[in-house]
Amino acid sequence: MTAALLPDRIDFDGPFPPQSRRLRLGIVGSGRIAAMQVTAARLSGRWDILAGALSSDPEKARPRDETWYLDPARCYASFDEMAKQEAALDDGVDAVMITTPNHLHYPAACAFLEQGIDVLCDKPLTNERSEADDLLARTRETGQVFGVSYVMSCSPRVRQARELVEKGTVGTINQIHVEFMQDWMTPAEVADADHVKWRLDPAKSGKTSCVGDIGTHAAHLARFVSGLALAELRADFHVCGAPKPLEDTAFMNLLFAEHVPGQSSGAAANQVPGTLMVTRLAPGNRGGLRLRIFGSRGGIAWDLEHCDQLKVSIWGQPDQLMTRGHGHGVSPATERLLHSARGFGEGILEAWANLYTEFALAVAARRDGISPPDDWLSFPQVSDGAQGVAFVDAAFRSHQAGGQWEAV
Amino acid sequence: MTAALLPDRIDFDGPFPPQSRRLRLGIVGSGRIAAMQVTAARLSGRWDILAGALSSDPEKARPRDETWYLDPARCYASFDEMAKQEAALDDGVDAVMITTPNHLHYPAACAFLEQGIDVLCDKPLTNERSEADDLLARTRETGQVFGVSYVMSCSPRVRQARELVEKGTVGTINQIHVEFMQDWMTPAEVADADHVKWRLDPAKSGKTSCVGDIGTHAAHLARFVSGLALAELRADFHVCGAPKPLEDTAFMNLLFAEHVPGQSSGAAANQVPGTLMVTRLAPGNRGGLRLRIFGSRGGIAWDLEHCDQLKVSIWGQPDQLMTRGHGHGVSPATERLLHSARGFGEGILEAWANLYTEFALAVAARRDGISPPDDWLSFPQVSDGAQGVAFVDAAFRSHQAGGQWEAV
Amino acid sequence: MTAALLPDRIDFDGPFPPQSRRLRLGIVGSGRIAAMQVTAARLSGRWDILAGALSSDPEKARPRDETWYLDPARCYASFDEMAKQEAALDDGVDAVMITTPNHLHYPAACAFLEQGIDVLCDKPLTNERSEADDLLARTRETGQVFGVSYVMSCSPRVRQARELVEKGTVGTINQIHVEFMQDWMTPAEVADADHVKWRLDPAKSGKTSCVGDIGTHAAHLARFVSGLALAELRADFHVCGAPKPLEDTAFMNLLFAEHVPGQSSGAAANQVPGTLMVTRLAPGNRGGLRLRIFGSRGGIAWDLEHCDQLKVSIWGQPDQLMTRGHGHGVSPATERLLHSARGFGEGILEAWANLYTEFALAVAARRDGISPPDDWLSFPQVSDGAQGVAFVDAAFRSHQAGGQWEAV
Amino acid sequence: MTAALLPDRIDFDGPFPPQSRRLRLGIVGSGRIAAMQVTAARLSGRWDILAGALSSDPEKARPRDETWYLDPARCYASFDEMAKQEAALDDGVDAVMITTPNHLHYPAACAFLEQGIDVLCDKPLTNERSEADDLLARTRETGQVFGVSYVMSCSPRVRQARELVEKGTVGTINQIHVEFMQDWMTPAEVADADHVKWRLDPAKSGKTSCVGDIGTHAAHLARFVSGLALAELRADFHVCGAPKPLEDTAFMNLLFAEHVPGQSSGAAANQVPGTLMVTRLAPGNRGGLRLRIFGSRGGIAWDLEHCDQLKVSIWGQPDQLMTRGHGHGVSPATERLLHSARGFGEGILEAWANLYTEFALAVAARRDGISPPDDWLSFPQVSDGAQGVAFVDAAFRSHQAGGQWEAV
Repeated sequence: MTAALLPDRIDFDGPFPPQSRRLRLGIVGSGRIAAMQVTAARLSGRWDILAGALSSDPEKARPRDETWYLDPARCYASFDEMAKQEAALDDGVDAVMITTPNHLHYPAACAFLEQGIDVLCDKPLTNERSEADDLLARTRETGQVFGVSYVMSCSPRVRQARELVEKGTVGTINQIHVEFMQDWMTPAEVADADHVKWRLDPAKSGKTSCVGDIGTHAAHLARFVSGLALAELRADFHVCGAPKPLEDTAFMNLLFAEHVPGQSSGAAANQVPGTLMVTRLAPGNRGGLRLRIFGSRGGIAWDLEHCDQLKVSIWGQPDQLMTRGHGHGVSPATERLLHSARGFGEGILEAWANLYTEFALAVAARRDGISPPDDWLSFPQVSDGAQGVAFVDAAFRSHQAGGQWEAV
Repeated sequence: MTAALLPDRIDFDGPFPPQSRRLRLGIVGSGRIAAMQVTAARLSGRWDILAGALSSDPEKARPRDETWYLDPARCYASFDEMAKQEAALDDGVDAVMITTPNHLHYPAACAFLEQGIDVLCDKPLTNERSEADDLLARTRETGQVFGVSYVMSCSPRVRQARELVEKGTVGTINQIHVEFMQDWMTPAEVADADHVKWRLDPAKSGKTSCVGDIGTHAAHLARFVSGLALAELRADFHVCGAPKPLEDTAFMNLLFAEHVPGQSSGAAANQVPGTLMVTRLAPGNRGGLRLRIFGSRGGIAWDLEHCDQLKVSIWGQPDQLMTRGHGHGVSPATERLLHSARGFGEGILEAWANLYTEFALAVAARRDGISPPDDWLSFPQVSDGAQGVAFVDAAFRSHQAGGQWEAV
Repeated sequence: MTAALLPDRIDFDGPFPPQSRRLRLGIVGSGRIAAMQVTAARLSGRWDILAGALSSDPEKARPRDETWYLDPARCYASFDEMAKQEAALDDGVDAVMITTPNHLHYPAACAFLEQGIDVLCDKPLTNERSEADDLLARTRETGQVFGVSYVMSCSPRVRQARELVEKGTVGTINQIHVEFMQDWMTPAEVADADHVKWRLDPAKSGKTSCVGDIGTHAAHLARFVSGLALAELRADFHVCGAPKPLEDTAFMNLLFAEHVPGQSSGAAANQVPGTLMVTRLAPGNRGGLRLRIFGSRGGIAWDLEHCDQLKVSIWGQPDQLMTRGHGHGVSPATERLLHSARGFGEGILEAWANLYTEFALAVAARRDGISPPDDWLSFPQVSDGAQGVAFVDAAFRSHQAGGQWEAV
Repeated sequence: MTAALLPDRIDFDGPFPPQSRRLRLGIVGSGRIAAMQVTAARLSGRWDILAGALSSDPEKARPRDETWYLDPARCYASFDEMAKQEAALDDGVDAVMITTPNHLHYPAACAFLEQGIDVLCDKPLTNERSEADDLLARTRETGQVFGVSYVMSCSPRVRQARELVEKGTVGTINQIHVEFMQDWMTPAEVADADHVKWRLDPAKSGKTSCVGDIGTHAAHLARFVSGLALAELRADFHVCGAPKPLEDTAFMNLLFAEHVPGQSSGAAANQVPGTLMVTRLAPGNRGGLRLRIFGSRGGIAWDLEHCDQLKVSIWGQPDQLMTRGHGHGVSPATERLLHSARGFGEGILEAWANLYTEFALAVAARRDGISPPDDWLSFPQVSDGAQGVAFVDAAFRSHQAGGQWEAV
């Protein structure tokens, strides 16, 4: 780690610079999301995946070890062991991804942070606000890099949307609508599947199931693109399919507020109303995360199911579609996130790869003692994770109280 | 009126029968909606438009008189005069359309009902529940035909959607989402336009503005397709654009219940949650009335902006698109509502024409003393109008009470 | 006919003016296309449909007579009889629509022209070029109004497309692609249906079947929007489905040329290449008439299956969608053709109604001795019909000659 | 290479098996397509990219060396040197990708084949038929693995399309239409860009420019999905934009024939007509490779611009959309090619990764002395490349001869 990872001279407005070597990544967890992230980390070109604590059950861990070509000597039975042993290696991992069930995010993250290893953690960040606050405090103190996987914010079209909103393309925002509709829980029997069970177990999933899982994605996306803070909400949780211990559906009303540091967010004059809906029982919707922002001059609409397309509507002009590749109004900061030759669409894996690229740059910059520019730090971080936990907490409180307004 | 209007022998499952003569229609009102309805009534082929009380201001009335080729002797200065004089004619109008500002719907409807003239009235039916109840009572007593212009329920794809739901294609419904998003109020100055002013004046528009106008469309559509009654709701009204005396935006949570006659609708076990959103400030949305119904087997989605298309998603199968014309899974009852040779798309005017066709058949049948089959009476009627008024009333009460649940 | 039909003072740039009375329309033919046109003529608000020669077989004619509420005294057994009798009436028809099988277009048109009655004729105009030339000569001599039903050119978005091309939005045109793909002949047995048989009979349909039927639509659309003349083509005809005496599919290469009066159109320097495809055996395509024009600055795309939408792509800018109603970049000349309140989509019937509106204005203007402005005469006329016949003729010659280039 | 690369027991119908180690890949070329392939090879998880002959100009090569983290000792100045040196290493590359300008494909491929190194080569395979035939002969003799980058055939939806056609979903094919429309050559000045110049230089690009580049993609896709051989074609080449030495646009008529080994392909009874269009001057089209196949029972449509979607239309049924992820009618062989958790769309990189996965399996299988099943060999190979060269040759001959029919 003595040689600089980033070049001496960086053009901060240009393409992202290469590193002097690939960074070393470890894996905690072995489910489908872990598999997608391994693929994405490789796609980014900036990481070698070298070590893992894939499962306490070696029978479960082995197939993944083999698929991912991990060094058997660096496949550990627990994250604690992994953290300690990797920290002791000269070429130990620079960072880990944590994709365990929710209740293990906090202890796993602590184990690695304590060893000086940077972390990219799945959402919701933790099941308790106090845990999230603690992670936030720790990283503030140490300066460690801590990413949280609100990956849609790394999609090129989402970045373009945020940039357009910031530039005033839609004028003053007056409404924000976001929904995440999936269909995979439609058959009653899916609740019994291994990879689903823990999501319905409050001891593992936390106070909520789909609110923490996909609701936090929706809330983050709305905040990220609008640039507004989520001030208050009220929520109704529902079990729409077969009976189950946690909600599979939730509808919320939101109030956003301009984020004025040092001031209460609830000032009526600035409040922007919105709605949020999440459900896993919406046949015809596979990954229907959809954001619409309306303002005094125009509106934007983005849909994860057509993630490479952004609709921009300016009052008095024809609707515009920004899509597929460079040029045609695509901004330089957006182009930096595109992988394919122009004209070819991109999917969700490419957004994941962007997260791993920006996370790598932040890890490399910290090691080089460089301050990266703000727009290199657009990827979701521990503070976003903590806001997500606060969102889950407020939604749960509101639901418990019959849907009354709660501050986030 | 002595000769039978409908043929002796009707094939009730076949195409709609012709009448022995065109029916005679009068117009009350002269705005854009009146113009669209005149066009649609002609498109239906079943009406001659002969008389009108277009405006108390002759300067306003004249251009319309001329465009619509009304007999100058049958252009009246008031609906009262029109009702009386037309009733006295041998060939007076069989029915009138009422498209005045909301507060005049009730007195105008009464004037014509009292003269034995059937009515097709714009929505919301009335500004007060008592008025709606009175109209319902009057027509129950007299058997007069009274349609209300929830015209989307006459779109062929909406009818097909209802039929599919009824047949169990989506299984047991567990969620209903409906929204009506328009953009026309985006520029602040539009509030001052002549055809808009009355919509923001509580004395004319009633307790609400967009809730009565487009919210009742949305609520009717959800009930019509799902076959479920709207039991309870809670509502937040917003003014998202320039300051104005009535809401331009509203978000609601809904609870539907299976309609079991003689039983309270709120039985928890049967309740189906849903959402409803309406706004006139959504740039990029022109006529965005969108319905989604999700059930245990599948889901359907319809969007007025692509009104000739119905998306049907059955769990485990590819999504289906039902569209443009006959065949390809289109039901006979839907085909009856199609105007164009197969392959050609249809718009909103054709749905209006279907309303005028079914209204004509009901008027003709009443005169012939025939009971039309239920599916000829699928067009929205005074009971639907009264439910719309109850919906507006409940939404207003809920908003006033800070968004608490109210029975509809 | 002595009173002026059009107002004294017309704002030629404004909305189309009303007439002092509805014009009187007669019908020759009784098939599906006739039914659609009757509906459209009524939709236009400018015509009363009063007389007809629907079928030489009274059993076939009666149901239509009744549906269309024709005066039984004005239902004739032949077009010859109809032409003579109507001409003798004080309130005889001002014009007729001709929707017979192709081989009767010419004699029927002649019968009415000779009696001073204006004509709107289905396409292809005639089966022989000499017949088309004769009709062109006759109307040039008499000044009679003669429309031909290339109805897509009356769709608002097609008009907008033409206007954009004319203004230079796409720059210099360098390619034109047009196709008309339908699926209705997919089942082999459909060839035996009554309304199909004549289309496969050379004695009635002419030298071609689908080339004359839908190919001429495609060719007209390409010429109309591009403003370029079709100079040369080469064609391959195919029978893709069950064996039949005439083609059900054809593929052509086209060369367009700037129309320079008095000069040969084939000057190489100005030639713009293109393609044309027509087939009735394309499952998944109902009314797939699609036009794409590419130029040095941008491109446009229009699809009849989504006829209320126009895609405009300018190099270096996001794609634009012009759709649904007024404003948002829609030109005044396009707005004049819209029927629905803003926000609501329109279908093919509305385009037909526009044809009947512009035809009515031309008929009225001729009777008033007024010269309507050029853009009132955008509807397809006998010269367009004659060009369509020349196109069919050239395509047939090319196919016969093994696909060699032929001048149109 | 002594240890087996593939597991002892393979479930040939199940997911693709892991290898015992990543294979070693070298790069010849350094352009945009090379960059995309490096990314894709990493995405596949089956390759380490270790060596390269990126450019004869070290200034051009270095940035790529660094971005791709190649070992400087294994960055060579020429492909000849690379082939020899890598072959001499114990851990030399197992295979190379060749992405040079077209005229170098042949000598580069020969250099590596001679050293026993497998090859994945860009298209068109060679500029001369004799060269393509030679490569085909060499690999037949040695059994070496030789892939060609017709990558769209590795898109999951294209595979599903092929499977549906094979199963008879569309019935007997009677038409095939394919086009590849791009817009990037719209601005005249782009012809002078470094990465474009060679594409317009006959000495490097060969007899054609866009026909060899994107035309061969289109032709391969049509053959791959239909399962039919391309028997004859006729072609017109055009220069639609600024003057240039090779075509930027071409339109072709095609005749396909059922591939009956040992029999002339041109037997009239079996011929299926089609069309092929390619252009780089189609504003609004970025990567518009579109295939439509129509048959006696139905049709399919696929568009690279929405590559994760397949439209399937069966006569008499609603259109179907197969999209995004597992289930819902997606076949097991298609699922094997999906990377993302269900519900998330995929782009072109994932198709490239599938090509690298299947290429890896073939390379590993050859080394293990295993015969992989046919459906592991669906990726495009040297025989497909040779057919592509024959297609280019026939198209050029036809164009030279004024568009006459030529056998492929």
